[in-house]
Amino acid sequence: MSEVPHMPDLRFSQRRRWAADQAIAYLMQQAVENPDVLSLAAGLVDDRTLPAGIVREVSQRLLADDAVARRMLQYGTTAGSTQARRAVLGHLARLEGAATPAELGVSLENVVLTTGSQQLLSLVCEVLLDPGDICLVAAPTYFVFLGTLAGVGARAVSVPSDSRGMIPGELDRLLADLEKAGELPRAKLVYVVSYYENPSGVSLAAERRRALLEVVQRYSHQHRIMVLEDAAYRELRYDGPQLPSVWSCDESRRWVILAQTFSKSFSPGLRVGYGVMPEELARAVCDRKGNEDFGSANFNQLLIAEVLAGGRYEEHVEGLRRSYRAKRDAMLAAAERYFADLPVRWHRPDGGLYVWMTLPEHVETGFESPLFRRATQVDRVMYVPGELSFAGPKERRPRNHLRLSFGVLQPPQIEEAMRRLAAAVRATLAES
Amino acid sequence: MSEVPHMPDLRFSQRRRWAADQAIAYLMQQAVENPDVLSLAAGLVDDRTLPAGIVREVSQRLLADDAVARRMLQYGTTAGSTQARRAVLGHLARLEGAATPAELGVSLENVVLTTGSQQLLSLVCEVLLDPGDICLVAAPTYFVFLGTLAGVGARAVSVPSDSRGMIPGELDRLLADLEKAGELPRAKLVYVVSYYENPSGVSLAAERRRALLEVVQRYSHQHRIMVLEDAAYRELRYDGPQLPSVWSCDESRRWVILAQTFSKSFSPGLRVGYGVMPEELARAVCDRKGNEDFGSANFNQLLIAEVLAGGRYEEHVEGLRRSYRAKRDAMLAAAERYFADLPVRWHRPDGGLYVWMTLPEHVETGFESPLFRRATQVDRVMYVPGELSFAGPKERRPRNHLRLSFGVLQPPQIEEAMRRLAAAVRATLAES
Repeated sequence: MSEVPHMPDLRFSQRRRWAADQAIAYLMQQAVENPDVLSLAAGLVDDRTLPAGIVREVSQRLLADDAVARRMLQYGTTAGSTQARRAVLGHLARLEGAATPAELGVSLENVVLTTGSQQLLSLVCEVLLDPGDICLVAAPTYFVFLGTLAGVGARAVSVPSDSRGMIPGELDRLLADLEKAGELPRAKLVYVVSYYENPSGVSLAAERRRALLEVVQRYSHQHRIMVLEDAAYRELRYDGPQLPSVWSCDESRRWVILAQTFSKSFSPGLRVGYGVMPEELARAVCDRKGNEDFGSANFNQLLIAEVLAGGRYEEHVEGLRRSYRAKRDAMLAAAERYFADLPVRWHRPDGGLYVWMTLPEHVETGFESPLFRRATQVDRVMYVPGELSFAGPKERRPRNHLRLSFGVLQPPQIEEAMRRLAAAVRATLAES
Repeated sequence: MSEVPHMPDLRFSQRRRWAADQAIAYLMQQAVENPDVLSLAAGLVDDRTLPAGIVREVSQRLLADDAVARRMLQYGTTAGSTQARRAVLGHLARLEGAATPAELGVSLENVVLTTGSQQLLSLVCEVLLDPGDICLVAAPTYFVFLGTLAGVGARAVSVPSDSRGMIPGELDRLLADLEKAGELPRAKLVYVVSYYENPSGVSLAAERRRALLEVVQRYSHQHRIMVLEDAAYRELRYDGPQLPSVWSCDESRRWVILAQTFSKSFSPGLRVGYGVMPEELARAVCDRKGNEDFGSANFNQLLIAEVLAGGRYEEHVEGLRRSYRAKRDAMLAAAERYFADLPVRWHRPDGGLYVWMTLPEHVETGFESPLFRRATQVDRVMYVPGELSFAGPKERRPRNHLRLSFGVLQPPQIEEAMRRLAAAVRATLAES
């Protein structure tokens, strides 16, 4: 090989170029390079609340039986373990207030288990979206999903949103515009994080759930425009109304893909997420998944199935809610305390892990902004710039928002981080 | 919703169409519909050899420590746990006969952990292949990978192969033809299952490993044509030479992507595979993986790391080898016994899970063939038709091969299955 003087370049695919520039990598690098910074950026769940005891007990019970252990260690199927999918439907029935899984109006063929719900979101994009196709999203929306859309070459179109979520009238207007422009055939998906959205903390208001569906159905002349409902934070409800899923508002079960996960409510390290969707879409997702990995880890699926069967899951989630509720309250109290005299607004979330903060319009929050530099380098606190969570060209996105997470830090650290952040904001405002 | 009389169709992506028609689904359906059939088709590993005891012991040890348990249950990173990647490099060093991992000439940045090695194969295709791009493959080759290539719209071009694997001179000729046709810019990958190939059982001969690299380098005028080495069966060696990996033959570490897995040597239900590749390719793979699932299960990676550290892995694989060697010998002995008087040839594999059998050219083996029907419906035995493992249009593929797996059945069942298969072949030959 030493005789090969010339090392020719790799020639990457278009997809590789679409996958470049992920903000999350920059954020993680910042965190590594600044270990003494208090991070309100990380979207991780709290280590201390992870269910070590339950997993210890359940895995010991399962693995004690050689036959069960071997079943866990063998290949599963692409759609996921039958037993685990049945457990997931039972779980969903409880969340939906259905007396039995049969009442849900779906069966095992409608359920696909994935590597976190992220893989479900990705697979849905793969089987529905060609390059140039359109997915309508809230403004702001989950930034990792914007990367997934970019990764398949799809266009994300922002639907104006307020403190009650995506505005159905605005969705209507945008679809009408697309129709006028002859682009309606490219509109395939509406993506909505329905509970305590990452990053805004906002939930889609109850009456808007049906309204969104009606808009989507009205524009489905030639093909079905699907709603992709990301309910990742659904179980992390601290107060406020118990909202029905968008999925449950569609009695036909044909218009909504419901994506959920055990990453937030139980353990992200197990990477068990799932989707419920029309059968022909589930088949498409499984065919694609067959090409990608022909099935997520059977071991983890059977573990989750036993956790759900064992009865300690609900108790665990109740504990989580108490813990995160206290953290949310700590963050909100600190915001009242330290930001009271500043021209800053924030949203009070009923659940989830995020508080969304809005600065005056001229104050930028991005990686290159004076605020971000001041916050990370002087005051030693980090947040996620809001501009990452908006679709569209960078120069036209709002740049004056911050996503603050109360997931990882403990209440005293949250208080201190908010104090530091207020100091950075105050200094930046004084200089701007 | 009951007022919506019209249910418009879904409009799927091109990729969904590329993912359709997976033979594996048909095979699994056949297995379900014919439960009394002895299956020489399933490529599963043997339930009885799955490491229930080791996983029980290791997981108990890990989960006994709350801090460790919580680390396993928390998010990992997209490339995979640092600890697990380090363990994987240590393991690879042992396989390569290197004194230390440092001697391998790669570092953690070159390693990506995936959901089985299948996901690694898929991700490599994603970041290198645009629709219409070319991957050269052996004839026959791993049929699931042919599906993965089809799934990204790539073209698979068959390189003539013999009992010593892909023929370098034929690869040379095909690349020259592509160059003449102006298609060389589309040739990005050469895929080779280097040890005990699924389906042929063939290993790429030692001298051909370097020869293939030299051919690939000679045609890399404008971009680097990469070799994707699938070494899934590497550790299942029963006798024959201990071959160096193709990867190890490239001292520059720039031309080969080495894909390996713990699915065959330990447990497929944990779905831990990995790839070793040039750093810029590892970054591309991780960026794409960030869009797809942002990391495989951390829990499973840390479990495998501990298994590798604990010292019982080697002993387990040694036991596996003994068990599969006996099964291979049972299959070969049964072939000698029942097929001696038939115009049939087969390859004696030095490892892996497969025996490749060749019938006279006019005897078809496909799903629709008299032999397949006779075998499944009368003699109650199933195999994988060889034609699934060839690239290119169906009508031009060889149709007279069978892939026989000795992975799942026990020696007496293998003997009985081979007796049945010989009966089906004999009856079919008599009628043809």
